[in-house]
Amino acid sequence: MKAMLNVAAAATLALLTALPAQAQFAKAEDAIKYRKSALFIMGQHWGRLGAMATGRVPFDAKVAAENADALAVVSKLPWTAFGPGTDKGDTRAKPEIWSESDKFKAALDKNQAEMVKTIAAAKTGNLDALKASFSAAAPTCKACHDNFRKD
Amino acid sequence: MKAMLNVAAAATLALLTALPAQAQFAKAEDAIKYRKSALFIMGQHWGRLGAMATGRVPFDAKVAAENADALAVVSKLPWTAFGPGTDKGDTRAKPEIWSESDKFKAALDKNQAEMVKTIAAAKTGNLDALKASFSAAAPTCKACHDNFRKD
Repeated sequence: MKAMLNVAAAATLALLTALPAQAQFAKAEDAIKYRKSALFIMGQHWGRLGAMATGRVPFDAKVAAENADALAVVSKLPWTAFGPGTDKGDTRAKPEIWSESDKFKAALDKNQAEMVKTIAAAKTGNLDALKASFSAAAPTCKACHDNFRKD
Repeated sequence: MKAMLNVAAAATLALLTALPAQAQFAKAEDAIKYRKSALFIMGQHWGRLGAMATGRVPFDAKVAAENADALAVVSKLPWTAFGPGTDKGDTRAKPEIWSESDKFKAALDKNQAEMVKTIAAAKTGNLDALKASFSAAAPTCKACHDNFRKD
């Protein structure tokens, strides 16, 4: 189990170091504002897919694909901004993100894998594919919020 | 001149309606938060290109290309969130955005055209190309901030 977590953590680390924003913030405050901004934008586009997946708004293949395109980029941004020293300030991030970083990385890996699948599904033009992947992905968002974000 | 502005306005409207977020916000407050978030993220990635273009940090072709990829998507997002009714609230947007919308759209078109050029230049791996396009684009950011954003 530990080995599996380490594999997951290594995969996430590889992901994180492949991203542009890593360690490029002038101050911790900017990193916090950046990740909150990216998570809010992500939530908006995710919510639009969710509204279609759950039948609250009619399915529109073009709108689904456009939101998926935005998510493909924006969903990668927040994780570049959880560097050391960004645990204090105007943030709801729990200290466990840093004190149990293996667990956080494993949860994030799970979420990012589901996110990739939902983005792909949202671009197929097939509502059933979107429904299935959205409902598999949503609990991986919630898991992180429950465990790593203060109320 | 009016005809030219109308052409520019029409082009921007076409751009705006082609974007995913148009008129999809649950409330005006969300639209305002969304555009501020997107502008902040845009500013961070733009600032990283600027730091290289102006010699404050060493040029790194990979980092430049990664920031350009993020900008290519994020730079299109804020403009979807200036819909009617989003002029009041926690925003520094000036009323002229709506009362002189032709001028705002013309300024935005100019900026978006320069943004596309800078993004392309940042992906060439050529610092001189980045320098030239960045210095042409920066005044088009400033023009909008000066004319359409409160201090």
